[in-house]
Amino acid sequence: MEVKIMRNVLDKNQDKADENKKILRESNVIMLNLISSPGAGKTTILESLCNNMAARFNIGVIEGDAYTDRDAQRLAKFGFPVVQINTEGGCHLDSFSINKALGELPLEQLDIVVVENVGNLICPTSFDLGESYRVAILSTTEGDDKPAKYPMVLRDADIVVLNKTDLLEHTNFNLDNFKSDLRKLNPLIPLFEVSAIQGHGMEMLETWVSSIILGTK
Amino acid sequence: MEVKIMRNVLDKNQDKADENKKILRESNVIMLNLISSPGAGKTTILESLCNNMAARFNIGVIEGDAYTDRDAQRLAKFGFPVVQINTEGGCHLDSFSINKALGELPLEQLDIVVVENVGNLICPTSFDLGESYRVAILSTTEGDDKPAKYPMVLRDADIVVLNKTDLLEHTNFNLDNFKSDLRKLNPLIPLFEVSAIQGHGMEMLETWVSSIILGTK
Repeated sequence: MEVKIMRNVLDKNQDKADENKKILRESNVIMLNLISSPGAGKTTILESLCNNMAARFNIGVIEGDAYTDRDAQRLAKFGFPVVQINTEGGCHLDSFSINKALGELPLEQLDIVVVENVGNLICPTSFDLGESYRVAILSTTEGDDKPAKYPMVLRDADIVVLNKTDLLEHTNFNLDNFKSDLRKLNPLIPLFEVSAIQGHGMEMLETWVSSIILGTK
Repeated sequence: MEVKIMRNVLDKNQDKADENKKILRESNVIMLNLISSPGAGKTTILESLCNNMAARFNIGVIEGDAYTDRDAQRLAKFGFPVVQINTEGGCHLDSFSINKALGELPLEQLDIVVVENVGNLICPTSFDLGESYRVAILSTTEGDDKPAKYPMVLRDADIVVLNKTDLLEHTNFNLDNFKSDLRKLNPLIPLFEVSAIQGHGMEMLETWVSSIILGTK
């Protein structure tokens, strides 16, 4: 019974995700879905992207949070449209809430929509939002064992961002072990090592974002 | 329909949690439920507790992980009984899996059972395992906004451990803001600031654990 209901929930989510994909395709807008643990740096990475890419591209943001609009406030200062989704304790975004949020964004004026999912390394992985690319964000301070312990998010991701490289020297994070475990799951996935707070390595991520936007023009 | 099923799941979970409480009471064993984000330091804190308290107390460990038995392997070296629960991608432990795990532990020889939940700051909060105390673990590298953004885990917790204080100086974590947000949710909750990896502040946490064990003898 419970399994059947879950199947039903995921099927309905997939139908709406397909609808979202169609809407995005028709507007020629790509969408990123950022997935990470709480505090891995999704908002800081997004701030850095908004700051550095504002002159070239129009970015829309959908902020998913269990509670509060703190992240939306942090991002509103860049002048891009930001839609806040509060899940009221819910552990992931779904394609229905994204569908509503897309309706509130001026898609015809945008190049890219970036969705910041609820901080959770497990539940968001089951819910397709209709995104063009799924971005898994991990951080050095979480430890190098995350690919082995949370394989779901990395198997389905299109790129991986390893954040907080500025703290690497203060941790026991082993970059070789991390990469080796990551490559076992997803051999050719691009990995960008960044310190969003210090700006290190962000140019590689920005180049990737630019290339996928320009590639659709 | 979905809400009714969820209600049903939680009701069944509560019944089994009550049964677990009874089992623990009859064996005079207390149980901790450690909840945190992935990589906040649950296993390192547990290693430190096991290492420093082994001479005085008998500790049983239940390791919850989505995949792998890496944490169980890290803890097995202390010679205490460790039971591994793999949720196969599931986002939280429930009272049924804990009930089975308790059956595999020599409860009559133990003083305390420590459950390390799956790394997730949202889903585990809805599922009572029958624990005597719920321990919320946060870390400085996750940012000081976690109490505001993830209030559920802190409202229901009995103590809060703030880990990775050794990295505090390298982050923009504001301890006053963190405490202020925490106190709004749960005014009198004990907060222990520790660096489990360097051993700082662990004696306060150990004193608390000792006192709750000795208090039941």
